[in-house]
Amino acid sequence: MSIPAAPALPTPFERYRSEIQAELRNALDGLDQPLYDMLRYHFGWREADGSAGPGPSGKGLRPTLCLLVSDALSGSHGSALPAAAALELVHNFSLVHDDIQDGDGERHHRATVWSVFGKPQAINAGTAMYALASLLLARLEGRDVAAERLLAALRLTHASCLRLIEGQFLDIDFEDRLDVTVDDYLTMIAGKTAALISCSTGLGALLSGDGEASCGADDATVARFLEMGEHLGLAFQVRDDMLGVWGDSERTGKPVGADITARKKTFPIVDALDRAEGAQRETLRALYGSDRIDEDGRDAVLAILDELGTRQRAERLAEMHLERALAAVDGLTLQPGARADLEQVARFLTERDH
Amino acid sequence: MSIPAAPALPTPFERYRSEIQAELRNALDGLDQPLYDMLRYHFGWREADGSAGPGPSGKGLRPTLCLLVSDALSGSHGSALPAAAALELVHNFSLVHDDIQDGDGERHHRATVWSVFGKPQAINAGTAMYALASLLLARLEGRDVAAERLLAALRLTHASCLRLIEGQFLDIDFEDRLDVTVDDYLTMIAGKTAALISCSTGLGALLSGDGEASCGADDATVARFLEMGEHLGLAFQVRDDMLGVWGDSERTGKPVGADITARKKTFPIVDALDRAEGAQRETLRALYGSDRIDEDGRDAVLAILDELGTRQRAERLAEMHLERALAAVDGLTLQPGARADLEQVARFLTERDH
Repeated sequence: MSIPAAPALPTPFERYRSEIQAELRNALDGLDQPLYDMLRYHFGWREADGSAGPGPSGKGLRPTLCLLVSDALSGSHGSALPAAAALELVHNFSLVHDDIQDGDGERHHRATVWSVFGKPQAINAGTAMYALASLLLARLEGRDVAAERLLAALRLTHASCLRLIEGQFLDIDFEDRLDVTVDDYLTMIAGKTAALISCSTGLGALLSGDGEASCGADDATVARFLEMGEHLGLAFQVRDDMLGVWGDSERTGKPVGADITARKKTFPIVDALDRAEGAQRETLRALYGSDRIDEDGRDAVLAILDELGTRQRAERLAEMHLERALAAVDGLTLQPGARADLEQVARFLTERDH
Repeated sequence: MSIPAAPALPTPFERYRSEIQAELRNALDGLDQPLYDMLRYHFGWREADGSAGPGPSGKGLRPTLCLLVSDALSGSHGSALPAAAALELVHNFSLVHDDIQDGDGERHHRATVWSVFGKPQAINAGTAMYALASLLLARLEGRDVAAERLLAALRLTHASCLRLIEGQFLDIDFEDRLDVTVDDYLTMIAGKTAALISCSTGLGALLSGDGEASCGADDATVARFLEMGEHLGLAFQVRDDMLGVWGDSERTGKPVGADITARKKTFPIVDALDRAEGAQRETLRALYGSDRIDEDGRDAVLAILDELGTRQRAERLAEMHLERALAAVDGLTLQPGARADLEQVARFLTERDH
């Protein structure tokens, strides 16, 4: 099977890619138990049979944001690098478990960890990523970060992981419910997605600069970057939900309306279930109360979403969070060019087509 | 169903029980998302329908060891209490995932978390326990523990979790193998069991005493308690394996030879597969290479173990690790009565019948 080339990303993603990969490989260096082969498989470094893998996939959004914020505040990101690798590990821990929970057999055009190594071992692969991330952060002490600041970074990370797991719980809980409101949905994605993205910008601020004396922004600045990340995360997830319904399959790598046939309770559906009345409401409830939605059902759902103006509402919601994200850091003194970089990434997250 | 009364435990277990439970409940205080109901169910505090649960089960071995060591070194254990709760959370995270991985429907005479809430949500319950444990420890900073010492405690905990997961990986990996050697087995239990028990005695030493100035033993003393815990863990697991084969079902709550009919690769079986020759070897390999072992098969295995002297070898192995555990802390100045307490618990772990 040929793997399609990934669509281009804004320059800041390219800028840090090799450093993030080197740091991740470094984190796994010397860990030669077969357990860690599952991690190397997941990251695309090797195949299950030990041959070379296709290389990393995924955008590296969380580590990129972390390093970008660190650079924006101090012009250097050395102390934030292990945190960036930790964020990528935590994010991938959640993906590996998510694939088990959803029974998804493929991710980024490759068989998921559980479908290669079995669910019992894939559970171990996910928790190993989380433990390794925690260890990476706790070992930062040797790298000129004050112990108190590092503890703040650890508290942020673990509190964010707890929120992530809460969101993951709600996401699964929503699967069999037809009474999910837009507020419920926002609570769920605040946990599932925004928590770790907020943690990423927050860690970037907490660990900006190199060397104990200069390291880290003040509390007010950290709080503003946490808020920025929170809104970016919400915008990102709403956009992700839009792509799952209206995305161009050539660009997203998923079939048209994939999230509809998978009956996922993403923003467009929750919004429509919330607003539809009469015959539209009956149709939606019948489809989402059934075991499966076929192509005719998908087209019926798409027509209703169209009539209800769901797409415009989703666009406005993503835009609103983008604006709040940028407003959160408005007026802060940043390194030259940094604001433009942050804006470019923020706009990409909200307006991307892949 | 009536739940049999738990057999009596040595006094040190009783001494800390209510404090450990209070600290655990404290850790979950204010966490009112339904996610946490799974944790409350698992700990026996409530039933799935929200009614009162039967109360906590389990010995609380890890937190008890942690507090006992803390008291032994300093006569107080206030700073170690959150660590004790964290250890109980980490241990139970591994149990919740283990039950999913093994497909076990019952633990301590109650339905396991996954069999009540489903496997996808039970995965979240386990990782939430781990995240909460990490957060509890990282928040210890407010309780008069120096930041550097706390970071050492976090590094020890996460490194131990990684070893635990490595051990869990090997345990599952061994299921379908007949070539597991005694050395392989010892590597596996060093991860699966000894790592967290060593972490328990280590954290007790790292966090002994209250108040920043006096808190914590020196590195050499911490190292000796880590070694003590490592050997205690090995002795404990070998004894556990013996009980799974030769335990009195009235005392253990499990059927006679439960681990044999479950075809578990515990010490007696690994030792016997390693040593048996001729017809004995053929019989063992045929039984452990088949899909199930019935009662006749179990009796055949028990007879072979008897002929090979496996039980005596297991007893000697457990005794040897008990002696090494006690030798590790020999000569250290401890609080009055503390050595006797530690010895009592150590002997119980190695010689218990439940």
